[in-house]
Amino acid sequence: MKDFVFQNNTKVYFGKNQLQHIGDELKRYGSRVLLIYGGGSIKKIGLYDKLMEYIKAEGLQVFELSGVEPNPRHTTVNKGADICKKEQIDVLLAVGGGSTIDCAKAVSAAAFYDGDCWDLVTGKTPVTMTLPLVVVLTLAATGSEMDTGCVISNMDDRSKLGLINPQLGPKVSFLDPTNTFTVNAYQTACGCVDIMSHLFDLSYFSRQPGFDMIDRMCEELFKTIIKYAPVAIQEPDNYDARANLMWASSWALNGFLSTGIVQAPVCHAMEHELSAWYDITHGLGLAILTPRWLSYILDDTTAPAISRLGVSCFDVDAKLPPMDAARLSIERLSDFFFKTLGLKSRLSDLGIDDKNFSIMAKNACGGGELESIRPLRPTDVEAIYRLCL
Amino acid sequence: MKDFVFQNNTKVYFGKNQLQHIGDELKRYGSRVLLIYGGGSIKKIGLYDKLMEYIKAEGLQVFELSGVEPNPRHTTVNKGADICKKEQIDVLLAVGGGSTIDCAKAVSAAAFYDGDCWDLVTGKTPVTMTLPLVVVLTLAATGSEMDTGCVISNMDDRSKLGLINPQLGPKVSFLDPTNTFTVNAYQTACGCVDIMSHLFDLSYFSRQPGFDMIDRMCEELFKTIIKYAPVAIQEPDNYDARANLMWASSWALNGFLSTGIVQAPVCHAMEHELSAWYDITHGLGLAILTPRWLSYILDDTTAPAISRLGVSCFDVDAKLPPMDAARLSIERLSDFFFKTLGLKSRLSDLGIDDKNFSIMAKNACGGGELESIRPLRPTDVEAIYRLCL
Repeated sequence: MKDFVFQNNTKVYFGKNQLQHIGDELKRYGSRVLLIYGGGSIKKIGLYDKLMEYIKAEGLQVFELSGVEPNPRHTTVNKGADICKKEQIDVLLAVGGGSTIDCAKAVSAAAFYDGDCWDLVTGKTPVTMTLPLVVVLTLAATGSEMDTGCVISNMDDRSKLGLINPQLGPKVSFLDPTNTFTVNAYQTACGCVDIMSHLFDLSYFSRQPGFDMIDRMCEELFKTIIKYAPVAIQEPDNYDARANLMWASSWALNGFLSTGIVQAPVCHAMEHELSAWYDITHGLGLAILTPRWLSYILDDTTAPAISRLGVSCFDVDAKLPPMDAARLSIERLSDFFFKTLGLKSRLSDLGIDDKNFSIMAKNACGGGELESIRPLRPTDVEAIYRLCL
Repeated sequence: MKDFVFQNNTKVYFGKNQLQHIGDELKRYGSRVLLIYGGGSIKKIGLYDKLMEYIKAEGLQVFELSGVEPNPRHTTVNKGADICKKEQIDVLLAVGGGSTIDCAKAVSAAAFYDGDCWDLVTGKTPVTMTLPLVVVLTLAATGSEMDTGCVISNMDDRSKLGLINPQLGPKVSFLDPTNTFTVNAYQTACGCVDIMSHLFDLSYFSRQPGFDMIDRMCEELFKTIIKYAPVAIQEPDNYDARANLMWASSWALNGFLSTGIVQAPVCHAMEHELSAWYDITHGLGLAILTPRWLSYILDDTTAPAISRLGVSCFDVDAKLPPMDAARLSIERLSDFFFKTLGLKSRLSDLGIDDKNFSIMAKNACGGGELESIRPLRPTDVEAIYRLCL
């Protein structure tokens, strides 16, 4: 078990009747607010109007950055930073899912930098200061509402990179499950895969022996998703299902379940190449990759960890030999993604062929190897991409 | 499911090699440190000397309040507050278990109040400001290292009361499992009961339907304790066992597992009377009370919740009728406390008789009823005390 530091300062308002506190929370940080959102679904569900009412009741002045893309672009971040500088913004208000929140986090840092925000994302220039960020979450998926990272895409050079800094954590996040009632079946499914993948990548399959408590708690989050994802898809306005999924998304990535562990975000690294090159939905890419990755790395050393997933979460018989149990675990996980959640199972279904796999595999490994329960070289990553075709 | 606010600002350094950061952390808050500790065990295990070395290397000036009692007294808190005022203390450093930390929390508030600290504990005077508090934990039990409450005893009028205020939360806590290697079997056992009882009282048996994820995670903490408490008792220097228990103690009470739930600390309320009148170890009192309380409240409405504990944590057959499964759950919990952990099982074993039960029962109910999975009146509480004889 590795020594670690745990700290998470985000204040979370969770529930149906919490938005009334948003004016008070924003006011703590100043009077000039930059509202950041995506394609306008927040207007369709009436959230925009409700927010404006609360914010204006407090006499705050609101500026807007709308049209944030899924896989948010560095160009949009630059646009937001310009508004912050020009309008002397005091506080950011991100309303949306992970893409919008990630964009806002990057804006919060870029507001204090005079060049292209991409310099901050690549680490060429360190983050010095950030604007305070308040979040209203509308999608259970990325965990960005309670973590300190963001992922930004640069379509000029087809890269999608993560930036992690303690200063990027939201000050306050509003989690109202009713704001996810209109999320469709496909996005609900992709979000649930993303939650599970954070746990696979950042904890469960990176684990060292010794922190049994953390592995156990990961498994309960898996079970929470396995139970409630189909319910939310069948009954989009089931409050309990949406609430359990929403709180699970935050806890999959807020630091608690990666304590004591060397993190190894191997599926995320492989997927980021897919969405950087083909702009696909992150959760869908993860669903296609994960079972193939597990099959590829399955051997006597990895079988116990992979079989434990099936035994604890998918009713695989604990008495089976580990290799058999592990194979069955992978099969059940695939069934969950592709049958229960109804996601497409192959890259070829998305019109993706193998022509860029070699360069994507090299990029995914960042010039070296991907550390994990079994380290992967570019040739391994390329082989895994091929298994997904 | 109830709306809730979750926020926990304590920064935790966890592990074997973290204490080197303590000087840096203290320095953030000033140069005059009040070190608060108990009976001197921190000197025996060499922790005192190690701390002094790190603190003095940073040029900080250290004052001391030692001899904090188990069940810390309001008189000791007053003594600490006097030192803070006289020596213009900038920051408190509590080194010990829950009693020492609780005392330090009360001192942190009393340092800004000119009267008797008991006025703050009773709520007669509100807490206005607090001194920053840094903690080095030496016992896995109370969760005080990561929560915002403290419990103080007044032996003059035989009362033991809790004070909860967001300002009381430690700024930083150092959790090094090796600092608990010398905790004896009895204190280890009592600490483990306290951890379980926080979950019973503040979450598991107060629960409303709907937050399945939280119930599941409680059960994993129960299993963590059921697995590692006997290991820590048999092998006091087993790092994994001590680490799992230590982190479990923090997570049982840091707010996460009581989200969405109306809290009902019924066993704690009944136990506080026992330790206020007879100065017994808190965890021992809880162990004696809990199975009798569950037996007393067992009926058709409570059987499902009680049987779930046994099914998930004590191998009780899920196919049994709920009443039978619930009875077996209580039996297995009793066996765990009194056989596996080796704790005394009756108040009469501690020399306690029934002469004060009537007044204790009234005090425990605070002039009304105790809210819980089944509300308790003073006559109920008295009956439960009698079951413990």
